Amino acid sequence: MAELTHLDPRGNARMVDVGAKQETERVAIARAEVRMRPETLALIQSGGVPKGDVIGVARVAGIMAAKRTGELIPLCHPLPITQASVDFAFDEAGGRVLIESRVSTVGRTGVEMEALTACSVAALTIYDMAKAVDKGMVVGEIRLVKKTGGKSGTYVRPGEEVE
Amino acid sequence: MAELTHLDPRGNARMVDVGAKQETERVAIARAEVRMRPETLALIQSGGVPKGDVIGVARVAGIMAAKRTGELIPLCHPLPITQASVDFAFDEAGGRVLIESRVSTVGRTGVEMEALTACSVAALTIYDMAKAVDKGMVVGEIRLVKKTGGKSGTYVRPGEEVE
Amino acid sequence: MAELTHLDPRGNARMVDVGAKQETERVAIARAEVRMRPETLALIQSGGVPKGDVIGVARVAGIMAAKRTGELIPLCHPLPITQASVDFAFDEAGGRVLIESRVSTVGRTGVEMEALTACSVAALTIYDMAKAVDKGMVVGEIRLVKKTGGKSGTYVRPGEEVE
Amino acid sequence: MAELTHLDPRGNARMVDVGAKQETERVAIARAEVRMRPETLALIQSGGVPKGDVIGVARVAGIMAAKRTGELIPLCHPLPITQASVDFAFDEAGGRVLIESRVSTVGRTGVEMEALTACSVAALTIYDMAKAVDKGMVVGEIRLVKKTGGKSGTYVRPGEEVE
Amino acid sequence: MAELTHLDPRGNARMVDVGAKQETERVAIARAEVRMRPETLALIQSGGVPKGDVIGVARVAGIMAAKRTGELIPLCHPLPITQASVDFAFDEAGGRVLIESRVSTVGRTGVEMEALTACSVAALTIYDMAKAVDKGMVVGEIRLVKKTGGKSGTYVRPGEEVE
Amino acid sequence: MAELTHLDPRGNARMVDVGAKQETERVAIARAEVRMRPETLALIQSGGVPKGDVIGVARVAGIMAAKRTGELIPLCHPLPITQASVDFAFDEAGGRVLIESRVSTVGRTGVEMEALTACSVAALTIYDMAKAVDKGMVVGEIRLVKKTGGKSGTYVRPGEEVE
Repeated sequence: MAELTHLDPRGNARMVDVGAKQETERVAIARAEVRMRPETLALIQSGGVPKGDVIGVARVAGIMAAKRTGELIPLCHPLPITQASVDFAFDEAGGRVLIESRVSTVGRTGVEMEALTACSVAALTIYDMAKAVDKGMVVGEIRLVKKTGGKSGTYVRPGEEVE
Repeated sequence: MAELTHLDPRGNARMVDVGAKQETERVAIARAEVRMRPETLALIQSGGVPKGDVIGVARVAGIMAAKRTGELIPLCHPLPITQASVDFAFDEAGGRVLIESRVSTVGRTGVEMEALTACSVAALTIYDMAKAVDKGMVVGEIRLVKKTGGKSGTYVRPGEEVE
Repeated sequence: MAELTHLDPRGNARMVDVGAKQETERVAIARAEVRMRPETLALIQSGGVPKGDVIGVARVAGIMAAKRTGELIPLCHPLPITQASVDFAFDEAGGRVLIESRVSTVGRTGVEMEALTACSVAALTIYDMAKAVDKGMVVGEIRLVKKTGGKSGTYVRPGEEVE
Repeated sequence: MAELTHLDPRGNARMVDVGAKQETERVAIARAEVRMRPETLALIQSGGVPKGDVIGVARVAGIMAAKRTGELIPLCHPLPITQASVDFAFDEAGGRVLIESRVSTVGRTGVEMEALTACSVAALTIYDMAKAVDKGMVVGEIRLVKKTGGKSGTYVRPGEEVE
Repeated sequence: MAELTHLDPRGNARMVDVGAKQETERVAIARAEVRMRPETLALIQSGGVPKGDVIGVARVAGIMAAKRTGELIPLCHPLPITQASVDFAFDEAGGRVLIESRVSTVGRTGVEMEALTACSVAALTIYDMAKAVDKGMVVGEIRLVKKTGGKSGTYVRPGEEVE
Repeated sequence: MAELTHLDPRGNARMVDVGAKQETERVAIARAEVRMRPETLALIQSGGVPKGDVIGVARVAGIMAAKRTGELIPLCHPLPITQASVDFAFDEAGGRVLIESRVSTVGRTGVEMEALTACSVAALTIYDMAKAVDKGMVVGEIRLVKKTGGKSGTYVRPGEEVE
């Protein structure tokens, strides 16, 4: 039967032992979106401000958050990541900023949580910078779209196009 | 015209000056959800483990993250919060864990970001603890549902039931 | 009946609401000790090293830890402390380093945890710096000896001499 | 003659060089206790609250603190731990909560400080959550009970039963 | 005689007591520079990259560092800052990036260290981003140019033009 | 043509991928200075205070900052350092405290930023502790003087004497 490995046989939380795992290259890609009013999106894209500055701040926030994932997620292993990037695209028709993060490490455990955390904090940063004009924004669809490396091998989320 | 207050007139990022604002009590309530397969939800709820432990860890993670919001969100003002709680409910039919956070302060600026961050990190913690059995979970609908206090007064998200 | 205020009526952890409390000056004094072999104590006191350097590092560690208490203790309120000091004495006969911390704030909640954390981390730092010569050291008797300020008023630990 | 390796020949603090050490699996086990009034212990164990929630929060706090040891202890090497757990037992007769932490890494230096820090912060968290009913609690007997791995090999504290 | 207030009468480090000071608005402005080869400066300014991105990252880094000053500087009081900005100018003739930070709070102690830390980290970030092409860059002239508020009143560094 | 590796082909910030680099021993040495009035320097050196305490606190601050470099510098890779030390010398004639840091790791990327950050924070700590008597101090000449290890090999700053 499936079981939650972050709980010991008595059900207590623990950080599972990954000491016996191989050090391999591991990559994770996650995605998220921020939904907003079209005029908010327009403002972020070009409304009188240098192109990209909201996005630029959100990118830095996401990358920095990836590095601190182990401090935020209680049972997540700390690990020195070897690469991190966060990219953005605009869906004007849908009123959405689309976010994709990619994080790598050479280590004993994966970087799924780092990629998901990068997307989440990048999205929250966009919310923070635009909330004075639109409190109704929604951060959503935070999901793992691909991971490679480690014993469980490659995972690609069904229905997701990814390089 | 609406403008992004976190950018100065030349479009550069800044932490806006709240020094002249009044210290008032401010409360923010945010919500989020984690969507998953029914069997994953069942496992979190009772699958051979003491009731509530996954949820208990996620609650602590959310509360602790609320305190560190200012470190994560680049232009967010640091402030000493006076209250924080995170609650959970289960939607078995929809395969969802529902999350609600509530954060308060007595300060010069609101705690919307703290409430949103608490929800996000609580949701990511659930993902982390259950990802070995279900990589397809999605964190979504992270949104502000209510805020009180401050010059802009009370905001209630349309369509949202909240005390 | 006495109850644990850090748990809500359903028993869930929460950071209690201190928003309605008065901002008053609050002081807390805590003590701890590190027990060790006499020769370890002698080495810390003067064994070929400039007097006070182990102690100097432990003092800095304790003061810095006091500032980060809210990050370490999950339900502890973050607050800007206004004063912190850590002092040390040597009990050669008993093979003990005695530690006393004193922390103040002007705030809505006390600084007991800050004072206790300062003592704990100062003690652990002594352990770290001397462990190569004495792994058997024991950190003990970490306790609050006095607090003033706040609605509950002054507390002095029975049997404890304190200014 | 024995010497304090964390001080250079002139007595100045330094982080010693472990670059030439082997990467081996290293485990450390530490213990501590929180002494309290019997009624406080009873309240933590079952006093109208879901069994284990105080303990659950303390466990999470200890595990998270283990990951941040290098930030707290000035000369302690930062390292990515591969496993961490904190367990609790109740000594009703003696009015004590007993704490045991176990931390592992694959690295160039040991995890004694991580295990001791986990115990300390778990104990302080219990103090924090119960201090409203019992300010007289004492955290004590924080000690290393076992370590394995590294050049100095296995250490077991005399008189201590450990697996 | 002048004395170092961060040392007690016995010369031990301490965080001085500011609890009795008035809460007033306090502002500090600091400046720094990064000296580099002209071609490095040209590359930062426009060398095939979107104008401002190195500078944009350095700005975010400086603002975020200001918020964490109390964690870095051992005896510095933690305080919730109410405003922070970092600006940059280019001195092509001199091969310099000029940095100016401005930080405010309403509190019991000044924000000089926050302003100086913001400049320092912004400068180091420029170094980091350009070091692959120019390891010889020098960060210098980090200085306080103005402070207002508090009992000691206004300070303007002689010879410095400042608004 | 030279290019800034921390920006992707579209000019967006990223943490570059070092996953394919070799793990080798890497060392970096950096230097800085704090310029001040002669009487301030005299006070730091011996003015009625135990010799070395300002310096002792600055040393600890620098070593601790080295460990947190990856949190401060947005695109800097986090890595577990294996050694860190900070040394000081006095130039009475020039009214300067001279600082030298040395940091090592066994890793996929260098520790230049760690060494530079250690120097910067040590210098800022001196400023903090002496600012009550001399606000005019200047931190300057923060520079890399030597690095070894990695694909780019050894770098020694021209005109710099270094072991």
